[in-house]
Amino acid sequence: MRLRELIEPLARFKFSCTIEGDADRDVIGVATLEDAGPNELSFLSNAKYEKALTTTKAGAVIVSQSQAVPPGLTVLRVPDPYAALTVLMVHMHGYRKHPGTGRDSRAVIHPSAKIGDNANIQHGVTICEDVVIGKNASIYPGCYIASGCRIGDDAALFANVVLYEGCVLGHRVTIHANSTIGEDGLGYAPVGEKWHKIPQIGIVEIGDDVEIGANCSIDRATLGRTLIGAGTKFSNQIAIGHGTKIGRDCMFVAQVGIAGSVTVGNHVTMAGKVGVAGHLTIGDNAQLAAMSGVMNDIEADAAMAGAPALPIKDAMRSFAFVARLPEMNKRIKELENQIEALTKKRP
Amino acid sequence: MRLRELIEPLARFKFSCTIEGDADRDVIGVATLEDAGPNELSFLSNAKYEKALTTTKAGAVIVSQSQAVPPGLTVLRVPDPYAALTVLMVHMHGYRKHPGTGRDSRAVIHPSAKIGDNANIQHGVTICEDVVIGKNASIYPGCYIASGCRIGDDAALFANVVLYEGCVLGHRVTIHANSTIGEDGLGYAPVGEKWHKIPQIGIVEIGDDVEIGANCSIDRATLGRTLIGAGTKFSNQIAIGHGTKIGRDCMFVAQVGIAGSVTVGNHVTMAGKVGVAGHLTIGDNAQLAAMSGVMNDIEADAAMAGAPALPIKDAMRSFAFVARLPEMNKRIKELENQIEALTKKRP
Amino acid sequence: MRLRELIEPLARFKFSCTIEGDADRDVIGVATLEDAGPNELSFLSNAKYEKALTTTKAGAVIVSQSQAVPPGLTVLRVPDPYAALTVLMVHMHGYRKHPGTGRDSRAVIHPSAKIGDNANIQHGVTICEDVVIGKNASIYPGCYIASGCRIGDDAALFANVVLYEGCVLGHRVTIHANSTIGEDGLGYAPVGEKWHKIPQIGIVEIGDDVEIGANCSIDRATLGRTLIGAGTKFSNQIAIGHGTKIGRDCMFVAQVGIAGSVTVGNHVTMAGKVGVAGHLTIGDNAQLAAMSGVMNDIEADAAMAGAPALPIKDAMRSFAFVARLPEMNKRIKELENQIEALTKKRP
Repeated sequence: MRLRELIEPLARFKFSCTIEGDADRDVIGVATLEDAGPNELSFLSNAKYEKALTTTKAGAVIVSQSQAVPPGLTVLRVPDPYAALTVLMVHMHGYRKHPGTGRDSRAVIHPSAKIGDNANIQHGVTICEDVVIGKNASIYPGCYIASGCRIGDDAALFANVVLYEGCVLGHRVTIHANSTIGEDGLGYAPVGEKWHKIPQIGIVEIGDDVEIGANCSIDRATLGRTLIGAGTKFSNQIAIGHGTKIGRDCMFVAQVGIAGSVTVGNHVTMAGKVGVAGHLTIGDNAQLAAMSGVMNDIEADAAMAGAPALPIKDAMRSFAFVARLPEMNKRIKELENQIEALTKKRP
Repeated sequence: MRLRELIEPLARFKFSCTIEGDADRDVIGVATLEDAGPNELSFLSNAKYEKALTTTKAGAVIVSQSQAVPPGLTVLRVPDPYAALTVLMVHMHGYRKHPGTGRDSRAVIHPSAKIGDNANIQHGVTICEDVVIGKNASIYPGCYIASGCRIGDDAALFANVVLYEGCVLGHRVTIHANSTIGEDGLGYAPVGEKWHKIPQIGIVEIGDDVEIGANCSIDRATLGRTLIGAGTKFSNQIAIGHGTKIGRDCMFVAQVGIAGSVTVGNHVTMAGKVGVAGHLTIGDNAQLAAMSGVMNDIEADAAMAGAPALPIKDAMRSFAFVARLPEMNKRIKELENQIEALTKKRP
Repeated sequence: MRLRELIEPLARFKFSCTIEGDADRDVIGVATLEDAGPNELSFLSNAKYEKALTTTKAGAVIVSQSQAVPPGLTVLRVPDPYAALTVLMVHMHGYRKHPGTGRDSRAVIHPSAKIGDNANIQHGVTICEDVVIGKNASIYPGCYIASGCRIGDDAALFANVVLYEGCVLGHRVTIHANSTIGEDGLGYAPVGEKWHKIPQIGIVEIGDDVEIGANCSIDRATLGRTLIGAGTKFSNQIAIGHGTKIGRDCMFVAQVGIAGSVTVGNHVTMAGKVGVAGHLTIGDNAQLAAMSGVMNDIEADAAMAGAPALPIKDAMRSFAFVARLPEMNKRIKELENQIEALTKKRP
């Protein structure tokens, strides 16, 4: 593919692009500045890595309009290098192709299950009674789909994903390896010192276009459903409690944990290791910084940090003062001495 | 089932119940106030959701003795709505029935293994040398039971649970999908800059009636055993270090992490994301709030919060003052100015 | 094995050892002070457990040079009891022997895969196109090795480990059960309120002698590679973001989470639940205490604690002052009253 051929796919997304240098150079793929060879395209989106422009062997580099570049380096100038990179990665590399095995005879599929056209059900998959699986779905080895689950078209369940009974997944849902959907929540009633298990008869429902990372755990509801709204994306090792409802187009980073019966709005961002206590409400577009601990409802559009979480500006100021506490204590001590001296001097 | 027929099962647990409205109404199951239809029973246990009483389509609602209700709504008045709900959910829905496949010919079972009567060993299960499995146990596909493990009667291992060699599980133990029991702990001796592995020759022992959530990891002991006491309940993504001993009837919420050689008493509660450092002792009935970080022994009956953990009342007061640190600093500055002014005025 | 026969293996590691008591006593293994019987060797390395010397039934106990011991107890005196224990555990017990099944006919192995001599590929394993597996490697049931992966000699993948396409593992790499290597990172470009997936075309590369715990998740790089350096050891439930590069001989305790594009030096220690934000650099030999939250670059040899992380001495002082905040506030209030009184008295 010649460099000049990349202008058109960018233009389709309304990204302007001008080439400085050899626009006829061939490129076969995208790589980092460090790894790229003369037949590869690279990019610079974070000024921190600017030095690598002088050492890269990349055939060409996507840079911002104003980026200074060493002489002789062929560059594609675009308004937003990372967005342009995304477009060109999809154009040049596309997405993962799932293995197209069809319905493997070694899969264990209950006769009552309905499997859509062109679905790939690999060996080592278990599909129980009354399961419905959509068209073009890909189910990898080691997946266990319990009775009554429904999975939409073009869904992908990577190896060893487990769905408990009755869960519902929309179209184009992707679940990464070793994740568990619909296990029982921590529902017990205390009887003296003992814990009496409450049957967990609800389900998990996951909307269209959701992607769930690896090693996640999403509890089924005690009653009703635990809900992950359409378009929401989860990283790895996320735990969601029973009956919690997450809105649309949220983005949760690894190791987020949300207790039960929480309501999260649309387009909420939670950075790594955020924790949310039970029965709270988090408003639309809220942003929670890494390791935030949420003990109270959060308003829409709020940006929070800390544990317990504060508005992020207040949290940052408080963090700075925590580091200064020994000094503050010293100043108080000094004031006490001065006051004592002043008081003594007075009759 | 008619509503009046629910009085008797409640009475068996010594729960009084009076019905206001149509005691002959038929109900077929339990659902949330939001989801319930005219043939379903619902409940209100948290005053926060009181408004839903006016909009619910539920056939009847379990409420507290003193709860005000809209005219026309059929209610079951009980002293503790959530406890009554638990009893009626068990009565009307019961617990999950595990698939009754018996010993599937596609399971890979070592000839030396002993499998109890009526145990369900599903396809895709691996059972190694000298394993003993109790009566009525259910082992789901993808489980791997290493040599020498012993599993009690009525145990349930959901899909893809892995037990390393020699682990011992009591009666009625439940382990949810994708959990790992008995992996090696982080045992290394430093040899210069390198880490020299210490063989982990101990085991994990899990008492009767323990329930372990999904995606948990419980290290085997270096020597001796890691112990989870009878009746203890774990949520998901809990990590327990080697040689740690947890008492009876504890309740741990998701993402708790306990280092090695810790001793936890009976009936201890740890909320989500609590962390406990190695070699500590946590007394009976201690309660640790979410995200507590424990660096010192905790006395019996203590309630703690924060990282490092403080008694919860102190922690809450300190949290409040952290938020006020910028203001406190301003007050100190003001005092300094006033003192300076006072001092200057004096000869 | 007689006790006097243990002097020689210790001497090989240049550990001196003197026996007090019956040097001809037979021992068959190592156990804790609590569990050991008359034919077992035990050890005391932590003074906290000293009392157990008076109650142990161990045939002999490894102790430090200066440890006081009850009369009649046979002891091996060594300079470092824990190091000596390690040597003797390896000597007497050795490491786990992986089941030697060879290439099981029930494994699903693509014809293009190359499997090294004496590798054990158990039933229920999936090995895809163009995979290369080294000599003596052990792959347990339920593992899924996607196309193009390369695994070195003597590697061990415990049950249900999943490797996504193209990942590279060195020699003697061990990965514990239910871990995921090479899943897609959280790579999305925002398009209005929606998230547009960026293909994740990089890989994960793991160096020689790395050990990864159970239920871990290591993202593949967007471009290039996520790297775990040779000799590094991970506990359980660790999440590593895309493109992060970890150095050699690091030690990470359970539930550590590192975001994407982080560079971690050699021989770095991270205790439990440490979190590191994206694009940071952590210097060689840095030590991060449990639950540290890292928001800035960390210098080599630094020891840090807290969230946000501070130098550990500062953090410990600040933690102490946080607990004293109510008292500090009271002192400020007192000063304010005194100043007011002083000011009022003055004309």
